[in-house]
Amino acid sequence: MLKTMSEPDKKEITPEEAPENGKGIRNSGNASETGNRKTKGDFDLAAVYVSDAQYNRNIFFDTTPQAIRLYLLYNHWGLQILVYAFILVDLALAIFEDPAVVPLPIWVTSVIELVCLAAFTARLVHYAKVIPRERFWKDPKNICIFAIILLSLVDMIIYGALKASGFYAVRWSRVLRPLLLVNITEGRQLRRAFRSIRNALPQILYVFLLFMFSVLMFSLMALKLFGKRGLKTIEGRPYFTNYLEIVFDLYVLVTTANSPDIMMPAYNFSVYFAVFFITYILINTYIFMSVFLAVVYNNYKKYLKEEVRKLVRAKRHKMVRAFGVLQERKGEGEPVVSQACWNQLVRLVQPDISNAHRELLWSVSDDNNKGCIGKVAFVQLADLLNIQVIMMKSRPHPLKTWLPSLYLSSPSRLVCRMVQHKAFMYTYDLIILVNAVFIGLDEEDPLIANVEWAFLVLYLLEILLKLYSFEPRAFFSRHQFWNWFDTIIVITALIAMIINSALKLSGGYTSRQILDIVFILRILRLIRVVDNIKRFRAIINTLIKIGPTILTFGQLIVVVYYIFAMVGMELFKGKIRFFEANSTDPDKAFCGNPLLKNSVFAKHNYCKNNFNNVVSSFILLLELTVVNQWHVLSSGFTAVTHISARMFFVLFHIVVVIIIINIFIAFVLEAFFVEYTVDQSNLQSSLEKKIEELELGVKQEKLDGNLVDAMETNDNDMGNSESTKEKPALMFKIACKRYKTVDGLLQRMFEADLDPEDFADDEDFDPNNPSNLNFPNPNFDSV
Amino acid sequence: MLKTMSEPDKKEITPEEAPENGKGIRNSGNASETGNRKTKGDFDLAAVYVSDAQYNRNIFFDTTPQAIRLYLLYNHWGLQILVYAFILVDLALAIFEDPAVVPLPIWVTSVIELVCLAAFTARLVHYAKVIPRERFWKDPKNICIFAIILLSLVDMIIYGALKASGFYAVRWSRVLRPLLLVNITEGRQLRRAFRSIRNALPQILYVFLLFMFSVLMFSLMALKLFGKRGLKTIEGRPYFTNYLEIVFDLYVLVTTANSPDIMMPAYNFSVYFAVFFITYILINTYIFMSVFLAVVYNNYKKYLKEEVRKLVRAKRHKMVRAFGVLQERKGEGEPVVSQACWNQLVRLVQPDISNAHRELLWSVSDDNNKGCIGKVAFVQLADLLNIQVIMMKSRPHPLKTWLPSLYLSSPSRLVCRMVQHKAFMYTYDLIILVNAVFIGLDEEDPLIANVEWAFLVLYLLEILLKLYSFEPRAFFSRHQFWNWFDTIIVITALIAMIINSALKLSGGYTSRQILDIVFILRILRLIRVVDNIKRFRAIINTLIKIGPTILTFGQLIVVVYYIFAMVGMELFKGKIRFFEANSTDPDKAFCGNPLLKNSVFAKHNYCKNNFNNVVSSFILLLELTVVNQWHVLSSGFTAVTHISARMFFVLFHIVVVIIIINIFIAFVLEAFFVEYTVDQSNLQSSLEKKIEELELGVKQEKLDGNLVDAMETNDNDMGNSESTKEKPALMFKIACKRYKTVDGLLQRMFEADLDPEDFADDEDFDPNNPSNLNFPNPNFDSV
Repeated sequence: MLKTMSEPDKKEITPEEAPENGKGIRNSGNASETGNRKTKGDFDLAAVYVSDAQYNRNIFFDTTPQAIRLYLLYNHWGLQILVYAFILVDLALAIFEDPAVVPLPIWVTSVIELVCLAAFTARLVHYAKVIPRERFWKDPKNICIFAIILLSLVDMIIYGALKASGFYAVRWSRVLRPLLLVNITEGRQLRRAFRSIRNALPQILYVFLLFMFSVLMFSLMALKLFGKRGLKTIEGRPYFTNYLEIVFDLYVLVTTANSPDIMMPAYNFSVYFAVFFITYILINTYIFMSVFLAVVYNNYKKYLKEEVRKLVRAKRHKMVRAFGVLQERKGEGEPVVSQACWNQLVRLVQPDISNAHRELLWSVSDDNNKGCIGKVAFVQLADLLNIQVIMMKSRPHPLKTWLPSLYLSSPSRLVCRMVQHKAFMYTYDLIILVNAVFIGLDEEDPLIANVEWAFLVLYLLEILLKLYSFEPRAFFSRHQFWNWFDTIIVITALIAMIINSALKLSGGYTSRQILDIVFILRILRLIRVVDNIKRFRAIINTLIKIGPTILTFGQLIVVVYYIFAMVGMELFKGKIRFFEANSTDPDKAFCGNPLLKNSVFAKHNYCKNNFNNVVSSFILLLELTVVNQWHVLSSGFTAVTHISARMFFVLFHIVVVIIIINIFIAFVLEAFFVEYTVDQSNLQSSLEKKIEELELGVKQEKLDGNLVDAMETNDNDMGNSESTKEKPALMFKIACKRYKTVDGLLQRMFEADLDPEDFADDEDFDPNNPSNLNFPNPNFDSV
Repeated sequence: MLKTMSEPDKKEITPEEAPENGKGIRNSGNASETGNRKTKGDFDLAAVYVSDAQYNRNIFFDTTPQAIRLYLLYNHWGLQILVYAFILVDLALAIFEDPAVVPLPIWVTSVIELVCLAAFTARLVHYAKVIPRERFWKDPKNICIFAIILLSLVDMIIYGALKASGFYAVRWSRVLRPLLLVNITEGRQLRRAFRSIRNALPQILYVFLLFMFSVLMFSLMALKLFGKRGLKTIEGRPYFTNYLEIVFDLYVLVTTANSPDIMMPAYNFSVYFAVFFITYILINTYIFMSVFLAVVYNNYKKYLKEEVRKLVRAKRHKMVRAFGVLQERKGEGEPVVSQACWNQLVRLVQPDISNAHRELLWSVSDDNNKGCIGKVAFVQLADLLNIQVIMMKSRPHPLKTWLPSLYLSSPSRLVCRMVQHKAFMYTYDLIILVNAVFIGLDEEDPLIANVEWAFLVLYLLEILLKLYSFEPRAFFSRHQFWNWFDTIIVITALIAMIINSALKLSGGYTSRQILDIVFILRILRLIRVVDNIKRFRAIINTLIKIGPTILTFGQLIVVVYYIFAMVGMELFKGKIRFFEANSTDPDKAFCGNPLLKNSVFAKHNYCKNNFNNVVSSFILLLELTVVNQWHVLSSGFTAVTHISARMFFVLFHIVVVIIIINIFIAFVLEAFFVEYTVDQSNLQSSLEKKIEELELGVKQEKLDGNLVDAMETNDNDMGNSESTKEKPALMFKIACKRYKTVDGLLQRMFEADLDPEDFADDEDFDPNNPSNLNFPNPNFDSV
């Protein structure tokens, strides 16, 4: 095999020049000569390009066949999951390390960490084998990972040595762990989010400085107006006499956490002083906070747009390369790719694609039935593959084949018609509402407990009836979210209730945990009602669609939280202690720290909000994100350490609330606007048109690319259409898969600005400038 | 005069058909015949059309000369101010009516109210005279005003009668007063804002229902999870046992006002329960609140766009009518308006326009120097007049003319150059910063008090030096905001300090009020530093530009607050009392109401937050808008009345926080995006090009339509350019006046979507359909 693979090294130049070759007719004899003897290596290479384009991967891999195989292995989903699993284990070590939730001996955590580090090293070495050596060391994200591994090792050694000799030691390298999430190859979206934040920072900084100037001015005014009047706060402390205290108090007022308490002493003194605070809140809370959102939103959008533009450009360039590998020349025309080639390529890229689906895609690409496609049509392939087409085989109900006489009898038909009737749905909506009332009643009444069994039976009956009247495989097909949801909830509830009853009967003992699960399942069942109301379904579908994006923000939040949690644990661990409710320790009244005697923190019973382990740290950080009582929480920690501990909390507020939450809001806003305004992409509609042309489409009221909605409609159609006309054995329907990846959403967001037919950008690449041979890739640099 | 005016009634038909006439050449003989004998009535009518187009007025007035004169009077700025003054007095009556801040006898407030009502009636009658009778009664806003006046009278009579006979009476009609602000002719922007809200309501409602469904589900889950565990809140009450209480508590958690307190009992019991609250906050606080913002923003923008589109269409239609009145025909060409006609029209519309400015506008309209303009150029007039052109006469410094030898001597030139040098500015920035430090120090130290005098002298010196080196009239020209600001602050501070010293010397007595003013002025002076930093100036200019828009929201807020304040005062007046700090009344501990004994409300010392008069009501409502401690405030009022009083507070939260504040944020966002992205309008740039062509432009680095910025630059230029080359005696510069009105901002926001050259919309008017003769006016219907 290696022998036949000697060619690709030479061919590697072809895709580079493909755009030029594609234009001139004369000097492309070379391409057309090699056209008809494509090797397996060619197809492998082209498949890798297409797959990279499809998933927006931007790795400049070696094009030797060996490297390509290594590269394919590198991109294997199993290895990717493994990497995330190791990162998760590495991050989760914080649970077992001192200060621990579940303490484990040092040697155990150290060994686990060493295993993780070894895995990261192996992955890094694998990556180094895939891409050229000099590129590897140019990429900051590789250097980052290398540095993290090295520093972690150094820290472990120092920590072990210090601990062994009884000294105080800090595991400072734990702060670096979440950075792995950012710097691994798969962390593209996260890197992009961080880059967008970094790019928006200068603008945010200017607004922040102006905002701080305003706070400082108001503080000075407050000092002059209130400082000399001898007012007292409700705790009896002097009111607005120390400048730095005033700045802090007014900063807290921006978060609204101490409103209206901070105003009350002045307001009680004179009603005119309320004007000061009203002006302050108006300017700093309402106007400046809106300006922050505007600036964050605007900058984030601007840079993201730029990045997505680069991404799309890189994608097209990769497709052009793949085209260059597979192109052949027919007579004097433009270079083309034949159907046979294309078929082989698609089978390589997506081995599980059905023949029908592949033929559908081909008929979309080769609109004029020429048997071959040009560059423009070929380049669409990555996007076409990303459009999820649902195939539905219309199969008869199994009962119809097994017991046709019974299933087609008139009572059976009546049952089917009844289940498919709207009244059936409304009846069950009513049952759910009645159920909701019963859930609200006291479940210890034996009558009500029995009624619950009745409801469960009703729900089971519903599922069985539906299975009877609809084809079971269609009912449980991959996209029938609500059917799955219903069935799982009902069956789990059944199992939990049986276990609960068994426990009760056996020993009279009721497990609280199982009861809790039963209750939660019962209530979750009620959500079904919402899905039956069209307007609500539309909102929920939008929320579901932006779900994956929210996950990227989830990673962002985890990275930031983890870093703050690690620092917070080193600073504040053990300073505040929590005592169980039944504890009689006298220290309980002040959280085990005499410095908190009579403090607001202890009075509010906030002792469990501490940095004593990673779980309570995360919960505390979440409370700080919500901002309310932020000043009380931070005052507790400053009381037990030093006034400068405020810096930690203010910094957290600026990073998380002012920047990250605003980006989150910006993203939700943008995603909603896209939902409201953007229609389907051109490609999707052309695919759809083709499906309709071939009369393979599923009859539905409106093709709105709205998966769950469409499937629901289809569900009913499938039952009804039986009586109308003969359907084709196979039907297609488009579900927007691209949408499910963040990249897809982003590309769709900015698609309007990108001309889909414009290939000028391909020619932007200057073959004489080697730096441009590299894709103009926004993902190479790291945070 | 009346005689010559008999024609317009007939001519009234002409503008209606003008679009058709303008197209066909044949049947326009009529227009060309009347072309050369325009009466004063024609000009009056055309001027009214242009002025209506300019200010976006949409009143279908009678076109008899008498009605036109009445209409002109109706639009007189004096009368408009008078109407607002009467509304202000009417609204301010709440200060003097029971429950009063300053009690006045009933007969005094009644007489004042009667006067106000008489004024509103007079205005309404005036309006009825201006527009056709049948139109008057079709317009809901007239009916609204009529109803408000009538109901107020009825209420006054009932109230007076009941009071006289000693019964309990409610002044319910006071709730209607703020609706006057909405329904008067001038309340266009406010009406539009209300209409946008009303149109967005259905969408908001669906999201709200889904949100409430989610809250109810979580409440049910909380009841089941926590109700039976016998947990206690920090106040010792049972935790999460009553369903309605849980719903309220979890609703409050959405506002974050009771975070993390509401979570603590469950969290203290088990760390797993934190998951429940984290999920809740994530879904309901973060996601749903963002969705609210998205829905409000999107709908608001959508409807506003539609309204502005109609507005622009109506404007063009009015300009076409004006054109129809003044058009004449030259030979076989299109109908045109001659320069003489145009001049007379512009003089009528804007009597204070300078000849030079008028000629500039003409040269922009008549680009090819034909001496007459067609319809397309004529229609631009309203927009052209709205572009504020600043004329600057380059005048020599008065000292240069009076004492040329002295002013042009080398020491004098040195002073001028010094003042214009950047170092001068930096020196004063430094002085201001040093001043800030001194202000922070204790002002009772005599040394520091004297230093303040020194600073004052320095600031005075700065102003004098600037007046010496710059031309005083240019220095104090209308747009030099910061120069005015500086001078006023410094001179007021000087006067206040002199008064203070005089008082001190005369009796050793220091007036606290005057001292307060002195302090505030000193600190305001420091703001100057910000203006010298370019980045900050850009942000501040944007904020200043969106200022007028914020005023519309100010009115919106006043209307909503006033209604809630009136209702709140009737419900809660006198229930909670405030005692002065030095009071020894034992009731002080529970705000004069035994029901508040040991309540959180009384413990927080919130007694002054009550509905006992209109001022404290407004302040309380503002505190409720800020949301923090919202539940404590509302719990106080439910404790002294009934649990159902919560409805009032929840309703206030939904209306103000969920809807109005979100619209405010949406508007700030949109305004910022417009600032960031939209360039100057076509018209402005053509005007600018013309100014440049005529070499009348003021040299400046960048013409960014940024008034204050540009003027600042110009300020320095004027000093420097003296040495470079001879300037023309008169110079023009564009300031974006359109921007200063909300309409202008809105139009600019959506200008990109409106084709400026498209006249198709004129032809949308179907002359056969009389309802279309009326402008397609979004402003006719009222709230």
